[in-house]
Amino acid sequence: MMQDTDTHYMQMALGLAANGRGFTSPNPMVGAVIVRDGEVVGKGWHEFAGGPHAEVNAIADAGNLSQGATLYVTLEPCHHHGRTPPCTEAILAAGISRVVVAMTDPNPRVTGGGNTFLLANGIDVTTGICEADARQLNRFFIKHAQTGRPYVILKSAATLDGRIATRTGDSKWVTGAAARTRGHELRHEVDGVMVGVNTIKADDPSLTTRLEHTRGIDPIRIVLDTRLTIPENSKVLQGGAASDTLIITGNYADDDRRQRLSAQGVRIIETPVRDGRIDLALLMDRLGAMDITSLLVEGGGQVAAAMLNAGLVDRICFFFAPKILGGEGISMCSGPGPEKMADAIRIDNMEIHRLGDDILIEGDVGKRQVQGSGFKVQG
Amino acid sequence: MMQDTDTHYMQMALGLAANGRGFTSPNPMVGAVIVRDGEVVGKGWHEFAGGPHAEVNAIADAGNLSQGATLYVTLEPCHHHGRTPPCTEAILAAGISRVVVAMTDPNPRVTGGGNTFLLANGIDVTTGICEADARQLNRFFIKHAQTGRPYVILKSAATLDGRIATRTGDSKWVTGAAARTRGHELRHEVDGVMVGVNTIKADDPSLTTRLEHTRGIDPIRIVLDTRLTIPENSKVLQGGAASDTLIITGNYADDDRRQRLSAQGVRIIETPVRDGRIDLALLMDRLGAMDITSLLVEGGGQVAAAMLNAGLVDRICFFFAPKILGGEGISMCSGPGPEKMADAIRIDNMEIHRLGDDILIEGDVGKRQVQGSGFKVQG
Repeated sequence: MMQDTDTHYMQMALGLAANGRGFTSPNPMVGAVIVRDGEVVGKGWHEFAGGPHAEVNAIADAGNLSQGATLYVTLEPCHHHGRTPPCTEAILAAGISRVVVAMTDPNPRVTGGGNTFLLANGIDVTTGICEADARQLNRFFIKHAQTGRPYVILKSAATLDGRIATRTGDSKWVTGAAARTRGHELRHEVDGVMVGVNTIKADDPSLTTRLEHTRGIDPIRIVLDTRLTIPENSKVLQGGAASDTLIITGNYADDDRRQRLSAQGVRIIETPVRDGRIDLALLMDRLGAMDITSLLVEGGGQVAAAMLNAGLVDRICFFFAPKILGGEGISMCSGPGPEKMADAIRIDNMEIHRLGDDILIEGDVGKRQVQGSGFKVQG
Repeated sequence: MMQDTDTHYMQMALGLAANGRGFTSPNPMVGAVIVRDGEVVGKGWHEFAGGPHAEVNAIADAGNLSQGATLYVTLEPCHHHGRTPPCTEAILAAGISRVVVAMTDPNPRVTGGGNTFLLANGIDVTTGICEADARQLNRFFIKHAQTGRPYVILKSAATLDGRIATRTGDSKWVTGAAARTRGHELRHEVDGVMVGVNTIKADDPSLTTRLEHTRGIDPIRIVLDTRLTIPENSKVLQGGAASDTLIITGNYADDDRRQRLSAQGVRIIETPVRDGRIDLALLMDRLGAMDITSLLVEGGGQVAAAMLNAGLVDRICFFFAPKILGGEGISMCSGPGPEKMADAIRIDNMEIHRLGDDILIEGDVGKRQVQGSGFKVQG
């Protein structure tokens, strides 16, 4: 019964945490619920990066009712002085007698510090309640904390025969309104969105977040452009978005273009090139160091394949329209493919959703089933 | 209330009809239920082509209880002497007083004949109960009766990035056991299965029906082979299957090969060629005239595209494995594609099923959304 009660309140805290989706990066989403004598006396969540932590908001909400109460919090309370004072001290000061935690801090440098401090101060601590849900909720934060790289989602929108555009490059529109709205929600949820320069040339997307009924955050817009050939009138280079545009180039870039673009406020990042291509693994390290905890890769087929084949994609979101192109067009993944079907990349925990007339297939990217010797990894 | 009762018994009759799936062609599946004083006194279905009709089986099952009873039958009773005497006369002789019919005979030459005869003989006739379900059940029969061509199902098995094989042609295996079993069920359900000769050369399939727990009927195996280049040791040319193999050639075929293959018992059909390709629309007429009421097109990408682009496909069954090939491979549809995404072929009434780890997407093939002038129809 105790377990059931804990699960109930932790689920409530997880629901509160999710209110921060898209607003908290590089911090995690965190929710907190304070319960005394079987009644919820305080609720809070981390609303935006730099704002008060969930525990502090819940304690403020509870007023003087925290004394002797239980705090449910989706992540181990922090015990370090960052932009805000440590939550562990606020918990102690509020007189809370028991803390229930979904998951410990994934940052290897701080794991267990908050819980240890609370235990040492006579507070009863329970950990691991709804841990799987908490890990799922904060998978961006966890990946970044543990690897220094962003959690990468590969998005694609294709016909049922796997074409993202016709042979002439026409892709307007593959999918319908509901799928495109989900695409904008994804842009809100992530820190960065990345495309290859060919997608800029073909579609000239703005890559901003446009949601009808709610405020969305524009992601940092990242263009892979080894030779700095991006058209200077591209929408991603214009003002109007609330976020930066980064252009990732090799060392081929023309100095005049570079200066003109920089003068427009565009950030140009020169990166190591391997076999004529940007080294994507090193780029992920670089983006992670810039506190980009999550990255949505929107295309095109070459970038999708290069990211997949370098083992840098964590999850796929493939939208399929109820259409067949019926002949040659641009494929979801282009570039060299493996010789053996057994060398295909496995997708785990596949989910299927209907979005209007379209289908969304999501899943976690597993390893290539067999490491084929004939397959050249892209970099 | 009367309507609800009629629906109830007609659904029962439809369920009985489906017992004949795969065994009745070129006849339809038909089920019949006889009800007297609110009790089912007889049941029957058309079990196999050449066997007794559903009505006759139900009347035999009812013994002397048909007198004054109601007969529910999923298709208008026949009123012509075919392989069996007319069912209308058997109904009359059994003393049935009311006949409830799901749908009239779709054959334009006989529509209404049975019902008219029954009415003229003082029997109460109700038509159109569960008509949509009855039409769905017998869509192969209806298409063939109305157009003289088979109902065509295009089957494909691909990775999520739309590849049916690697660039080297390796396709073993894309999907898992449950999807392959569904593929064998489809072979049982149809009269014919068709592939291009490239599929024979790449995969050497037997194209027979292999079901573990139940008897399946082998479809007639049809190979499109304009220049008669099929390897003479191909599995489809060997004995062991319970059905014929037809090879569809143009007029290029080598006479020696033709004679050797004919001596093996293979039927070779020479057909008109347009632009170097077999005229698929004329071929459908020809297969329809051979009482092939349904055809499963199993590949490869060129045949799939040519059939789709000629407007000859009625339904798609696309199996998707939870895999990504991640680069060049063989696409579901090859050959020239349209210039505009708006010229894609629409899929209506899309259904999604999970089969083990795989997904099956089914739907009805609609028209191209816009008839693009830049698109060359394959023939």
